[in-house]
This record gives sequence, structure tokens and C-alpha cells, in this order.
Amino acid sequence: MVDKITTQWKGKMIFESDNPRGTLMMDASEEFGGTNSGLAPKAMMLSSLAGCSGLDVVSVLNKMKVKIDDFKMVVEGELTEEHPKYYHKVTVDYHFYGKDLKEGKIKKAVDLSVERYCGVMEMFRHFATVKTAIHYHNK
Amino acid sequence: MVDKITTQWKGKMIFESDNPRGTLMMDASEEFGGTNSGLAPKAMMLSSLAGCSGLDVVSVLNKMKVKIDDFKMVVEGELTEEHPKYYHKVTVDYHFYGKDLKEGKIKKAVDLSVERYCGVMEMFRHFATVKTAIHYHNK
Repeated sequence: MVDKITTQWKGKMIFESDNPRGTLMMDASEEFGGTNSGLAPKAMMLSSLAGCSGLDVVSVLNKMKVKIDDFKMVVEGELTEEHPKYYHKVTVDYHFYGKDLKEGKIKKAVDLSVERYCGVMEMFRHFATVKTAIHYHNK
Repeated sequence: MVDKITTQWKGKMIFESDNPRGTLMMDASEEFGGTNSGLAPKAMMLSSLAGCSGLDVVSVLNKMKVKIDDFKMVVEGELTEEHPKYYHKVTVDYHFYGKDLKEGKIKKAVDLSVERYCGVMEMFRHFATVKTAIHYHNK
């Protein structure tokens, strides 16, 4: 399968990019001539990682009929000092909130995503050391 | 420097992710329970690649005072057959449109991005074979 994405320059430092399920705008920072018209392209990689893994986790929890009240992921990517600057150290913190959280099943869902399902995680492992942690916030 | 991104589950298969310059929504495909409420996370990586490199190119062309009428990039990413599916073959086609295009300078701008500036391109090279090509559309 091939994904094909077209990204169109819209003048200034603005780009519009399509996606199988919509479009998005990107822009430079103000320091580099941006005009607050779109997202930072590099940092979108960290959203891509969280989105990919988060969808796996929710999908597996649904199949297991495990209920959670809330769920978020915090991804931190440390950039190299040298150009071209890329994320060489990445942490993904999974936070689950609820009453009597089924910690074993939640851990299994996260492990399945990290180790077997998430293609974006696999890409990240090729250029970064990726550390993951799960945090249970029982009410 | 560290980029920190928080991605919040919004129910169903919907996630909201922040970014240094805005927020974005992600969702699963309808096949996997999505409701057309956001972007496909994995394909966002291809937009990230184009956005990163496109910003370099426009920035360098501006410094060189090279004018173009239009500019777009087409990125194709071929996914592996096996899980976790990731982009193992990627092509980036740069298309420039204008009258009497300064092809040498445009090539230099693209080369600088591909070889030296674009951190997302560097990340992609760790997991994919990346081929780039420049297409000049003189009016």
C-alpha cells in the first residue's frame, strides 16, 4: 500500500497538505518569517506517534471491554544539537484515569501497540531511543 | 531543545494533539471505527516531511531572491507488508512553476534541504530509502 500526499505552497511560509482524512496547514515560526498560519511540521511527528499508538490502545481496550474515564499521552522529543536536528531521544508517557482501572489489561493494550502494532513507533525506533511508561490515575 | 506534545483522547477514536503553533485532530478510518473527525496519524508523517523540507526551500529561495510562481511537493510512502507497517520506500517530488525558472539555484535550495537542513528528512533516512526529484515547469 502506498500513501500519497500533496503539499502545496500557499505563499509566505505557509503550506497546505492533504491527508487521507482531511487537510492541514503548516507554517514557519515567527522567528523564521511565519505568520501563525499553521502547525510546526517537525513537532507533528510527535503527534503522529501519539495518534498512531493511541488508536491502537483504544481499539484493544474496546475489544477487551475495558472502560476508562480519560486517557492522554505526553510525548517528549529531544532534538540533536547538530544539524539536521532530529529527535534522538523520545519518551511516551501514557496516562489513564478511572475507577478501579484494570491495570493488567491496560498494560497489555499498551504493550501490544508499542511492540507489535504501531508503525510510527517502529519508525521512531530507527532514529531514536524510545522510552515508554504507563501511569494509572485511579479515582 | 525538547518538544513536548500532549495528545488527549476525546472519546470514540478521536484524539486532539497540541503543537507549538496550534492543535490538530486525529481519528481512525471508518473501517476501524472512525467518524471522520480527524486526520490519519501515520500519513501525517509524510506531510511533516514535505512541510519541513518545503520551509527550507522557500527560505533559501527567499535569501537568493529567486522568484517562483508556484511550488508543490508530492510525497509517496510505500508501507511494508508486515506489521508494524511503516514507510520503507519514500519518494519526494518537488515541482516548481514559473517563467524562466532559475534551475541551478532551485536545485541548490532543494539539495541544501535534503542533504543538510531538514531534520525530518534525516529521520526518514533511518527507516526508509528516500528518493528525491526536481521537476521544473517553465511557462
